[in-house]
Amino acid sequence: MSNVDPAEAARVLELLSGHRSIRSFTDAPVTDEVIAGAVRAAQMASTSSNVQAYSLLQITEATVRAQLAELAGGQSYVAQAGAFFVVCGDGRRHALLCAQEDSPYEVTLESFLVFFIDAALFAQNLCVAFESQGYGICYIGGIRSNLPDVDRLLKLPEHVFPFFGLCVGMPADDPDTKPRLPLDAVWFKDAYPTDEEMLSQVAEFDATMTAYYEQRIGKSRDWSTAIRRMRAQKKREELADFYRGKGASLD
Amino acid sequence: MSNVDPAEAARVLELLSGHRSIRSFTDAPVTDEVIAGAVRAAQMASTSSNVQAYSLLQITEATVRAQLAELAGGQSYVAQAGAFFVVCGDGRRHALLCAQEDSPYEVTLESFLVFFIDAALFAQNLCVAFESQGYGICYIGGIRSNLPDVDRLLKLPEHVFPFFGLCVGMPADDPDTKPRLPLDAVWFKDAYPTDEEMLSQVAEFDATMTAYYEQRIGKSRDWSTAIRRMRAQKKREELADFYRGKGASLD
Repeated sequence: MSNVDPAEAARVLELLSGHRSIRSFTDAPVTDEVIAGAVRAAQMASTSSNVQAYSLLQITEATVRAQLAELAGGQSYVAQAGAFFVVCGDGRRHALLCAQEDSPYEVTLESFLVFFIDAALFAQNLCVAFESQGYGICYIGGIRSNLPDVDRLLKLPEHVFPFFGLCVGMPADDPDTKPRLPLDAVWFKDAYPTDEEMLSQVAEFDATMTAYYEQRIGKSRDWSTAIRRMRAQKKREELADFYRGKGASLD
Repeated sequence: MSNVDPAEAARVLELLSGHRSIRSFTDAPVTDEVIAGAVRAAQMASTSSNVQAYSLLQITEATVRAQLAELAGGQSYVAQAGAFFVVCGDGRRHALLCAQEDSPYEVTLESFLVFFIDAALFAQNLCVAFESQGYGICYIGGIRSNLPDVDRLLKLPEHVFPFFGLCVGMPADDPDTKPRLPLDAVWFKDAYPTDEEMLSQVAEFDATMTAYYEQRIGKSRDWSTAIRRMRAQKKREELADFYRGKGASLD
């Protein structure tokens, strides 16, 4: 069953381990051929009961991309990257099929979460496919800051839920990878850690991040402070209303 | 910037394109060393503002795995695979940090969705890492059919949200890959397709799936009928209540 070349397997781990988000791109285009190859590979990611509940909307019009860059909070690379996509959870195919036979269609919380998982597995495969060919990527959660405007701009019909954007292009810089939590802070056996264990793992990570930022930007920043600050800001409170308005009951 | 070996890139696309879920495993174990390597690589997947809002709980105890196999709807491979994991969205680290300074902590719908995206990107990288080494994988959404029981069994604290399970092991069979929607049914440029276009793409896919099942199980089955049937069954209606009970406001 397993005829794996260990050197090749090691290179895949290296590829995954080498990921860092790219926010500055050369003007090299991403051709339709490259995109088609990446999308085909990405579609083979697991999908819950084969529902394939996602769509990939590429935006090529410069004026629309400029508007999206603004709506995403002023992220210029949305306009500048070789290619820009909006990844959507997509129940529309299902809804149309149900409507053909007057059968009921509802996007429950379970369906909605399946859309999210399906779309994210697809998107991550897509990113790995692009990165394996030397492209850089950056997920753009920022579109969720202005979803009603994004939705109007892209004219998305009911049951199509914009989730996040994706910049793809040839990197114009080569940033470092960013540290992650220690292994024993995310992988547990049989029992979830105690609060004390978890806080000690976080303290270890704070030291790592402090060293990382001191070396990189000459300032002392830790993860705990960043997380607390982020949590104190309530963000995107209108999200549930927006998704409900697009046909998700979320119950 | 781009010093990519085209043959190597092609092999990554082949790896992704070759995915099929494995539901029958040899008794070869998945060693801690292999798991650690895969988790480290998976952690490098993108994470929204570096929140790293996921945990991976490996279940090694045979009796617990047998119970989980039942709770997932009688999926024997949950007990039988070389390794079994529960992938959780995890706000607990954040909650503990906020509690230390009496700062507010709330899992809004936005946070909850970020947990889902973070966890899914991590999990998909994890699967690619395992598959690159010859292992097979199967996502287990079935645990969401009995989340309160799964949660009690695993003793997960507040703000830890079980999302899906993951079987990993050496494949004992070699099933075909399953067809996916045609490329032009998931990748659009600038405009979402009309209903007519979408239904014609779905009809094309129905023909593909019918041929696939006729050849494979000698029965005629299409995608449209499967989707309609699935949609008519309301499933997992208690999900929102469960996640709310674990500390997600979902608003």
